[in-house]
Amino acid sequence: MLKKAIAVVTSGGDSPGMNAAARAVVRTAIYEGVEVYGVHNGYSGMVHDDIVQLTTRSVSDLIQRGGTFLGTARSKSFMTPEGRKTAFENLRKRGIEGLVIIGGDGSLTGGSLLSKETGMPIVGLPGTIDNDVWGMDYTIGCDTACNTIVDAINKLRDTASAHRRIIIVEVMGRHSGWLAMMSGIAGGAEYILVPEVAFDLEEISLELKEMYERGKRYSIIVVAEGAGSGVEIGKIIGEKTEIDTRVSVLGHIQRGGSPTVEDRIKASMLGEKAALAIISGVSDVVYSFNEGQVVGVNLFEAVNNTKTLDPELVRLSRVLA
Amino acid sequence: MLKKAIAVVTSGGDSPGMNAAARAVVRTAIYEGVEVYGVHNGYSGMVHDDIVQLTTRSVSDLIQRGGTFLGTARSKSFMTPEGRKTAFENLRKRGIEGLVIIGGDGSLTGGSLLSKETGMPIVGLPGTIDNDVWGMDYTIGCDTACNTIVDAINKLRDTASAHRRIIIVEVMGRHSGWLAMMSGIAGGAEYILVPEVAFDLEEISLELKEMYERGKRYSIIVVAEGAGSGVEIGKIIGEKTEIDTRVSVLGHIQRGGSPTVEDRIKASMLGEKAALAIISGVSDVVYSFNEGQVVGVNLFEAVNNTKTLDPELVRLSRVLA
Amino acid sequence: MLKKAIAVVTSGGDSPGMNAAARAVVRTAIYEGVEVYGVHNGYSGMVHDDIVQLTTRSVSDLIQRGGTFLGTARSKSFMTPEGRKTAFENLRKRGIEGLVIIGGDGSLTGGSLLSKETGMPIVGLPGTIDNDVWGMDYTIGCDTACNTIVDAINKLRDTASAHRRIIIVEVMGRHSGWLAMMSGIAGGAEYILVPEVAFDLEEISLELKEMYERGKRYSIIVVAEGAGSGVEIGKIIGEKTEIDTRVSVLGHIQRGGSPTVEDRIKASMLGEKAALAIISGVSDVVYSFNEGQVVGVNLFEAVNNTKTLDPELVRLSRVLA
Amino acid sequence: MLKKAIAVVTSGGDSPGMNAAARAVVRTAIYEGVEVYGVHNGYSGMVHDDIVQLTTRSVSDLIQRGGTFLGTARSKSFMTPEGRKTAFENLRKRGIEGLVIIGGDGSLTGGSLLSKETGMPIVGLPGTIDNDVWGMDYTIGCDTACNTIVDAINKLRDTASAHRRIIIVEVMGRHSGWLAMMSGIAGGAEYILVPEVAFDLEEISLELKEMYERGKRYSIIVVAEGAGSGVEIGKIIGEKTEIDTRVSVLGHIQRGGSPTVEDRIKASMLGEKAALAIISGVSDVVYSFNEGQVVGVNLFEAVNNTKTLDPELVRLSRVLA
Repeated sequence: MLKKAIAVVTSGGDSPGMNAAARAVVRTAIYEGVEVYGVHNGYSGMVHDDIVQLTTRSVSDLIQRGGTFLGTARSKSFMTPEGRKTAFENLRKRGIEGLVIIGGDGSLTGGSLLSKETGMPIVGLPGTIDNDVWGMDYTIGCDTACNTIVDAINKLRDTASAHRRIIIVEVMGRHSGWLAMMSGIAGGAEYILVPEVAFDLEEISLELKEMYERGKRYSIIVVAEGAGSGVEIGKIIGEKTEIDTRVSVLGHIQRGGSPTVEDRIKASMLGEKAALAIISGVSDVVYSFNEGQVVGVNLFEAVNNTKTLDPELVRLSRVLA
Repeated sequence: MLKKAIAVVTSGGDSPGMNAAARAVVRTAIYEGVEVYGVHNGYSGMVHDDIVQLTTRSVSDLIQRGGTFLGTARSKSFMTPEGRKTAFENLRKRGIEGLVIIGGDGSLTGGSLLSKETGMPIVGLPGTIDNDVWGMDYTIGCDTACNTIVDAINKLRDTASAHRRIIIVEVMGRHSGWLAMMSGIAGGAEYILVPEVAFDLEEISLELKEMYERGKRYSIIVVAEGAGSGVEIGKIIGEKTEIDTRVSVLGHIQRGGSPTVEDRIKASMLGEKAALAIISGVSDVVYSFNEGQVVGVNLFEAVNNTKTLDPELVRLSRVLA
Repeated sequence: MLKKAIAVVTSGGDSPGMNAAARAVVRTAIYEGVEVYGVHNGYSGMVHDDIVQLTTRSVSDLIQRGGTFLGTARSKSFMTPEGRKTAFENLRKRGIEGLVIIGGDGSLTGGSLLSKETGMPIVGLPGTIDNDVWGMDYTIGCDTACNTIVDAINKLRDTASAHRRIIIVEVMGRHSGWLAMMSGIAGGAEYILVPEVAFDLEEISLELKEMYERGKRYSIIVVAEGAGSGVEIGKIIGEKTEIDTRVSVLGHIQRGGSPTVEDRIKASMLGEKAALAIISGVSDVVYSFNEGQVVGVNLFEAVNNTKTLDPELVRLSRVLA
Repeated sequence: MLKKAIAVVTSGGDSPGMNAAARAVVRTAIYEGVEVYGVHNGYSGMVHDDIVQLTTRSVSDLIQRGGTFLGTARSKSFMTPEGRKTAFENLRKRGIEGLVIIGGDGSLTGGSLLSKETGMPIVGLPGTIDNDVWGMDYTIGCDTACNTIVDAINKLRDTASAHRRIIIVEVMGRHSGWLAMMSGIAGGAEYILVPEVAFDLEEISLELKEMYERGKRYSIIVVAEGAGSGVEIGKIIGEKTEIDTRVSVLGHIQRGGSPTVEDRIKASMLGEKAALAIISGVSDVVYSFNEGQVVGVNLFEAVNNTKTLDPELVRLSRVLA
C-alpha cells in the first residue's frame, strides 16, 4: 500500500532534534521513491496552504541545528472542523496521502482530530523537551534540554558558592517534573521540587538553616514550573532561612541549542520509522523509544492518558543528595 | 621598601577570573619572598578575622574556575569607621602591610575609606562583569560574561526563528550598557537598548511590524537592565506590534562559568602587577587595561568618576544591524 | 548477609562518569550503614596498600568532574597470582568484604581472576567510552565521548567547507566501531569506516570524486581506530581523489570533559545498584543498562564474549547519508 | 573619491571571524551606497571569474559561523603575473575599483603583488589564528583558537590527572609561539615550548621527574608546532622521565568553531574600517588592532617584517607556573 506522496509538519513549541527528525522523514521517503512535502508554520501553514515539496538538498546541513526549519505556529482555525477540512484539502490537492506530525501533546491531539474527521492517515513523533507523553520514556529534545539546564546550574554554582547563597532554579516541564528531576540529580541539587511529589517549604528551610550553620557554602534547589513559581518559592525560603537567596528562571534558552548526540540519533531513527510506517499504510500511531526500543503507541491513547514520573528517579534523588 | 606580608580579598559580586587574579597575586608574592594571606568572605571576613596564610598549593587547579575560592559577602560593619578599624587591626596583627582588593565599584570605594582612615596601603583590581569602572576599558570577567550571553542568544535565536517571535533578552550591567552593547552586536541583535542612548518603543514597534510584514522570521532585542525592565518592555512591544513576544531575563548565569582565555590572561597579568606594586610601596591605585596596556588609575578618581559608553560601539551597532 | 565494609576501585582507561558512579557507591553504602573504602590508582594501589576510608564529604562536588578522583594505573604485579593475593590481603585486613570495580574489559577480567582465586566478592561496572562490553548497550562515558567527537566534527566542518576539503576524523573505540558509528551519524558524516563492516577505499574515492565534481563543498569521513590508521586512509583517499584531504586524530580529548546528563544519571544509578548488590551478597555480576533497563550480566560471560555492532545503526547510517 | 564597486575575498587558511569581517565589509559598502562583490574560493575564484554581487541578505545569519562562506583555496596561477592580470581583468570588467583581502601572511603578499602590478587598490585584514602579522597584536580568529585549545587542555587534564601522566599538546602557530604561549598560560601548563625561546628537554625531564617524585599528579606541556614535533618531544620526555607520556596533536579543530565575542566584534570593526578605507581611496594598508586601537600598517611592511613574541608573556608564564 505504497503512498505517492507524504507530508511532514512540526507543530507547537519547538524542541532540539525536530530538524533531525524531519530530515530523516524526508530522506527516507525519497530513498523509498515517495514524494515528500513540508508544511510551513505548523497547522497554520496547513490551513493557509503554505506547503512545499522537499528534496534531499532541502535538509542538508540541518542535523546539528536547533529549532525547526519548517517553522511552527499556533492556529485558531485548525481548532475548528472547518479549518481542519481546509487543511485536509490543501494536502489532498497535492496528492499527499499521509502526514507525519512532530510535536507535543496538543499538536498530537490536533492530529488525532484531523485523522478522525478527514481520514487522513497520521503518524506522530513526540517533539517536546518536557518528556511528558504517555507510553514512552523519550521525547525529541529532552536530552538536550537537560544538558542545557545542567550547564546553567554549573554556572550558578560558581556564584552561589562565592556568596554562600541559596540558588533557586526554575525549569520548564509544564505539568511534569521530569526535566527538573533529571537535571537536579545530574546537577547535584540539594532539593528538587516537582508537581508529582509533595514538599514542605517550612521543613526544607529548617534543614537548609542547619546545613548552613554546619558550614555549607551553597545549595541549589531546582523547581519544576509545575510545582510553583520559582520567584515565590525563593521569597518564602529566603524569609524563613534568612540566608541570601536568589532565583534564576531559565526560560526559553531551554528550548534551543544544537541537539545532543542522543537527540540527533533517536530523532533520526524515529523520523525514519515514521516515514516507513506512513508509507506502508500505518495510521494513528505515535512512535518513540521506551526502554531502549522503538515502540508504536496508539495516537488516541497517547493523547488521552497522563504520564507519571518514574518513582525510581525520585528515590535516587534522595539517596544521592 | 619591600613588604613582609600582604593580603588579598575578593569583594562584592563575584566575576569569572577573580580566581586567576588572586592566584597570580599569591604566586607573585611568594616568588618575591613575601608572605601572602587570603581574607575569606570579603570585608566581612576582614572584620571577623577570617584570614589565612596561602601557599602556592592553595591556588593550584584554580585558574579555570569561576566564582572566588576566597568567598565574598556584604558587610554592614565594614561600612562603619569602627568596622574598618577592626578590619585594619586584624590585618596588622599578622604583619600584613598591604592589601590587594579585587572587586567592583562599591568594593573599591570601601577600600578607599580603609586606606584614608587607617593608612593601610591598598591596590585595587576591577573585578566585575559590568566593565563600568572609570579610567579603563577592561574589568575582570567582562569577556566571559559577554560570551555567556551570546551563547544564550544563540539558543534563543533557534526558538525565535521557529515561531516568528520577537525575543527580548535582559542582561546585566547595572547603570552601564556595555555588556548589552557588546553581546548585542556579537549576537546579531536587531535592537540594543542601553541607558546611555534614548530609544522610542513606539518607533521600534513600528519598524518591527514592517520587518515582519516583509517576511522577517525573528528578531532579538537586547535590553540592559539599566535601560528598563525586560518584562515591561516586552509587554509594550508585544502589544504595539501584535507579534508573539517573549522575554528572557538571563540573571545570575552571567556571573558564572569558567573564564575565557582573555579573562584568565588579563586577570593573571593584573594580579602580578598588583602584587608587585603593593610590595614595592604603591598605594591607592587601581590597575587594569586601557587600550591594550596595563594602566594605574588613582583609586579615588576611579571610584568618583563615571565611565561613559564608547560611542564607537553605538555607531557600529547601527551600521551592522 | 549485610557487609561491614566494601571498597571501590577505578581501573584501566578513565572515562567521564566514573566519578559519578564512585560517588553513588560511596553515598549508598553510607546510607545503608556500611563502611566504604576507596582504592587509589587502580589495582596498583590495591597491591601497594593505597586504600583510604571515604565519607559523604569525600565525594562532594564530584558528579560534574571528568577523570577519576581515585586515580587509575596499570599494575604488572596484579597480573600475577601473588600480586592478587597481596591485594586481597590488603582489602581483608581492613574488614572489606566486597569490591566494586569500575573499568573496561581488561579491568573486569582482572577482577574475575581476583574473585576466582581469593573468593573476594566482586561487582563490576563498565567504565569505558568504547561501549564494547558484551551483554549491555551502555558503558559509563560513552555518551560524553560521542558528544565530544561531534563537537570536534562541527569545528572541522567549518574549515572543510571553507577549503572544499575531505576531512578524515580518527576516533577511539579499540576493536569496536560503536563510537565512530554514533558520532558519524550524529555529525552527518558522508562515510563511517568501522572494523565490523568491510569497505573499499577505491570505491569510496570514486564516489567522492563524483560528488565534488557535482559541486559538493566538503565531506567528513569518520574512521574507527580499529578500522585502520586515519593518516594512512587519508593518504590513500587524497591520492586517489586528488582532492585536498586532511586528517584529524582526535586522541585523548575523547576521554575527558564534564560528563553529560545521561552519563551522570546512568552512572549514578549503576553506582547505587552495585553498592546495594555487593552489600546484599551478590558477586561476579557486571551491572549496566540494556534496552533502557538495569541488567546484571555474569562477570565471566561479560569478559569472555565479544559484543557486535548494532546492525540497525549501520543501516541507518546508509539511509541518512 | 568614492568608488562605484568594491570586492571582498577570503584567502589562505580559514579562521573564525572571517565571516563577521566579510559581513561588515558588505553591510558598510551597501550603507555607503557602493556595490559590493564577493570572490569565491580565494584567488583561484578571482582568476577563474567566480565573482558574484552580494546584498545585505547574502550575509545575514553569518556572524556566528566559523569558516568562510566565500570559500578559500590555493591558486597556482595567481602566483604568476599572467594569473594576476587575469584576476585583475575579472574585477575590472565588473567595475570593481577596490579589493578587501582577508587572509594571512601569504595571502597579503599575493595582494601586494596584485596592487603593484595592476594598480588595483588593496586593503588587507589579517585573517589567521596564528597572530603572527607584523605591526599589530591581533589577528582575526586568534581569540577563538586560544579558547578552543584551552577547552581541549581542560579535557586532557582530566585524563592526565587520573593516570598521573605527562600530556604533550601540540598546537598550531606556524613559526610563531603566540598561540602556544597564550593557551599554555591560560590552561595552567607546566611548560610551554615555543620556537622563540630555547629549551632543554634534558633539564625539563629532570624537573618533571622530581615533581612526580614529590607527588605531582599530572603535567601539561604545550608545544608550538614551530618548536618541534609533539610526537618526537613526547617520545624523548617519556624515555628520559620514565613517566607515562601521551601526545595530543590538536590539528584542524583549532581553525573551526563559532567565533568568540572578541573575534566577532573586532572582525566587525575591522570589516567596517576596511570598507570605509577602500571606498575613500586608501590602498596598500592592512588594518588591525594594536594596543586596543585600530591601526593601519603599510601592506609591504606588514608582509616583509617578522613579528616577535611579546617577552612579557614569556616572563609571565614563568612566574605563574
